[in-house]
Amino acid sequence: MRIIDIIEAKKQGKEHSKEEIDFLINSLMDGTAADYQVSAWLMAVYFQGMTDTETAYLTDAMVRSGEVIDLGDLAAQVIDKHSTGGVGDKVTITLIPLLAACGVPVAKLSGKGLGHTGGTIDKLESIPGFNTKLSIQEMISQVKKIGVAIGAQTQKLTPADGKLYALRDVTATVDSRPLIASSVVSKKIASGADNIILDVKYGSGAFMKTPDDAVKLSEIMVKIGKKLNKNITAVITSMDEPLGRAVGNSLEIIEAIEFLKGNITEGDIAELTYDIAALSLVQLEKYSDIESAKSFVKEIISSGKALEKFRELIDAQGGNSEVIDDYSKFPKVKYTYKMKAHTDGYVSRIDALKVAYGCKLLGAGREKKTDEIDYGVGVYLNKKSGEFVKSGDTLCTIYSNDENKTKTAVEYCEKAFTFSSSLPEGEILIYKVIK
Amino acid sequence: MRIIDIIEAKKQGKEHSKEEIDFLINSLMDGTAADYQVSAWLMAVYFQGMTDTETAYLTDAMVRSGEVIDLGDLAAQVIDKHSTGGVGDKVTITLIPLLAACGVPVAKLSGKGLGHTGGTIDKLESIPGFNTKLSIQEMISQVKKIGVAIGAQTQKLTPADGKLYALRDVTATVDSRPLIASSVVSKKIASGADNIILDVKYGSGAFMKTPDDAVKLSEIMVKIGKKLNKNITAVITSMDEPLGRAVGNSLEIIEAIEFLKGNITEGDIAELTYDIAALSLVQLEKYSDIESAKSFVKEIISSGKALEKFRELIDAQGGNSEVIDDYSKFPKVKYTYKMKAHTDGYVSRIDALKVAYGCKLLGAGREKKTDEIDYGVGVYLNKKSGEFVKSGDTLCTIYSNDENKTKTAVEYCEKAFTFSSSLPEGEILIYKVIK
Repeated sequence: MRIIDIIEAKKQGKEHSKEEIDFLINSLMDGTAADYQVSAWLMAVYFQGMTDTETAYLTDAMVRSGEVIDLGDLAAQVIDKHSTGGVGDKVTITLIPLLAACGVPVAKLSGKGLGHTGGTIDKLESIPGFNTKLSIQEMISQVKKIGVAIGAQTQKLTPADGKLYALRDVTATVDSRPLIASSVVSKKIASGADNIILDVKYGSGAFMKTPDDAVKLSEIMVKIGKKLNKNITAVITSMDEPLGRAVGNSLEIIEAIEFLKGNITEGDIAELTYDIAALSLVQLEKYSDIESAKSFVKEIISSGKALEKFRELIDAQGGNSEVIDDYSKFPKVKYTYKMKAHTDGYVSRIDALKVAYGCKLLGAGREKKTDEIDYGVGVYLNKKSGEFVKSGDTLCTIYSNDENKTKTAVEYCEKAFTFSSSLPEGEILIYKVIK
Repeated sequence: MRIIDIIEAKKQGKEHSKEEIDFLINSLMDGTAADYQVSAWLMAVYFQGMTDTETAYLTDAMVRSGEVIDLGDLAAQVIDKHSTGGVGDKVTITLIPLLAACGVPVAKLSGKGLGHTGGTIDKLESIPGFNTKLSIQEMISQVKKIGVAIGAQTQKLTPADGKLYALRDVTATVDSRPLIASSVVSKKIASGADNIILDVKYGSGAFMKTPDDAVKLSEIMVKIGKKLNKNITAVITSMDEPLGRAVGNSLEIIEAIEFLKGNITEGDIAELTYDIAALSLVQLEKYSDIESAKSFVKEIISSGKALEKFRELIDAQGGNSEVIDDYSKFPKVKYTYKMKAHTDGYVSRIDALKVAYGCKLLGAGREKKTDEIDYGVGVYLNKKSGEFVKSGDTLCTIYSNDENKTKTAVEYCEKAFTFSSSLPEGEILIYKVIK
């Protein structure tokens, strides 16, 4: 078997066999396939696509390229949740303690994101002392003990995906559905849980621009997950404006705490967390219908159990759980700037990407893996779409450690807001559920 | 400007600007574009194609990546001929002295081929002493003196094409028309002649399998040549069976000498050489119609002037021109084997590729650039298509230096011949001329 024949076959639109996919991934790992050959293959995949069977083979080969976490007896009960990423998306943080408090063990591995703000791991690391460098054994024993653990994904899982992604990133081959699907699902499978919930975002602030794109991607992911014997559900959700009001690492944790305290019961963050939690309970057959599952979820919050589970999680991972009761224990910023409205009217849209650029500029995200994150900076949206503002009202608050960066961030945020004289139509948050 | 944006643009089917093409080729040359990025771009070009304008920009950028030969006053008169390559194709060798004898200066640069038999340069080097390592200045002064020179192409011409071709070769992106066209035409333009004749082969023994493919490729090459101010003609010819009777380096030179002596006046080699020579004379406005040009060409051969010009060429480049009168001065082989017919009938087809494999096996070609060529080995076709054979007649003669290799070569040659009971239809040799 030769790499060039595999490239040629895909170029001609042929379906790869399991042996061909395994040969390609093994050759990628041992260096016998040159990067320039793999990138040519990736571009051929972009044009010719892959069948669900091929995509499942690729996913499986990437899983086998590294370690696979063995959750043992826990695997069948544990749930793992993944979001394709959005601005202000702290639903993993609200959901994990909530599900654990509902009696569903959660073992979550998360990547350090490159992007406008940090990933889930970075957000949690804004809690002083919070340790995400757990060994697999530490994760398993913590899940057994308190029902929840969250760790930073190591390079030992799906290294082939890491290599492929690095190539895709510099060869304009990121936006291929089978490649995205296999990348996402392989990481989830290697993480060991039998139950997977995927939050697939679409919209101007997401990678998939249209609901149709998100549906097609989700269908592939659910199919290949099932082919690889996983219980998998995809929830397709809109990402046109930031999720919730906080964008920035510690700001998002604070918003998640407010939700777990029961202080946020309406709006996108609450709705999405309730829905995904309820879907998870139904998927695990703890409840037969969404509505009763949702009532239970809300009870768990109002009883304070979800918040207590988050405190347990922080304590278990070495963080200072006093932050829950005293937000001043989070990293502080030097400047806060209240950006005012110059007009009266309804907020009709807040451009997620523009807010995200502002946050990145302030230092909330990283461009290179080695960049430091400034945990305290970010943007808090005092107003969201559908809310009426009067001239002089605060639209958003900028948290910054640099006066010049504040000014530029304000410019981005000014451009992010659009107004209308009449109440805009409410957005659909959950577009579709695919299982 | 960033390479990834150029890849993305081509992926989306956009037309590159001159600046983008120049940036890509400059980045390829200075190493700022990684090979894996260039190969992804090549695969995108395979799928999305390039307009003639883009292909001309690419050709021009490749020309400017290295030295360009300045033929000075000669450029306007000099003709350069190129064949896309076929089994037994010695038409460059018959044509060059013939055209020079007709008063058309020829300056020809030729590559050392990788393939089943050597390239034109290798064939000429089977003449003891023949030196193809001429400097540009030596070539020009030789053309001025005797009207003809042939040299091995150096790496100094179109190095970007060399780099691109090396990548295409290992990433299954050889068979893209704009990439083939720009590769061929860039080399011709860098070689300095204003007049170019391309012999574009199609058929089982050629890279283009159908006449339609060859026509499309030729149309692009002629268009981009004209855009870059060259007087260019493409002759589309079939390559289903070996050209002429000899396949192998010195065997082909001997056949070319026989033609120049006037001993071969019929068949594919004679017909193609007459036609291309006549077309060249018409292209250079020495004759207004093909038929009178062809008569003149035939006179030049029968007068012995073409043969004498070949002798002059060999002498000028240090070769032993006694080979012309005494073929025993060519490298000798240890074994000759006459392969006999087992049946009566007409030869209906001789598979060019099978004969070529046999020759490669005997040592007539090279796989790696560093491989040595065995100049004397090869296959001589005693019978060609349309000729009647009786059982026991010699079909072909194998020239070899190794008994075992002889046996395997015979096996290939046995499979190459097909017979029929009735006279097969004659093949069309020249399918179309595009100017």
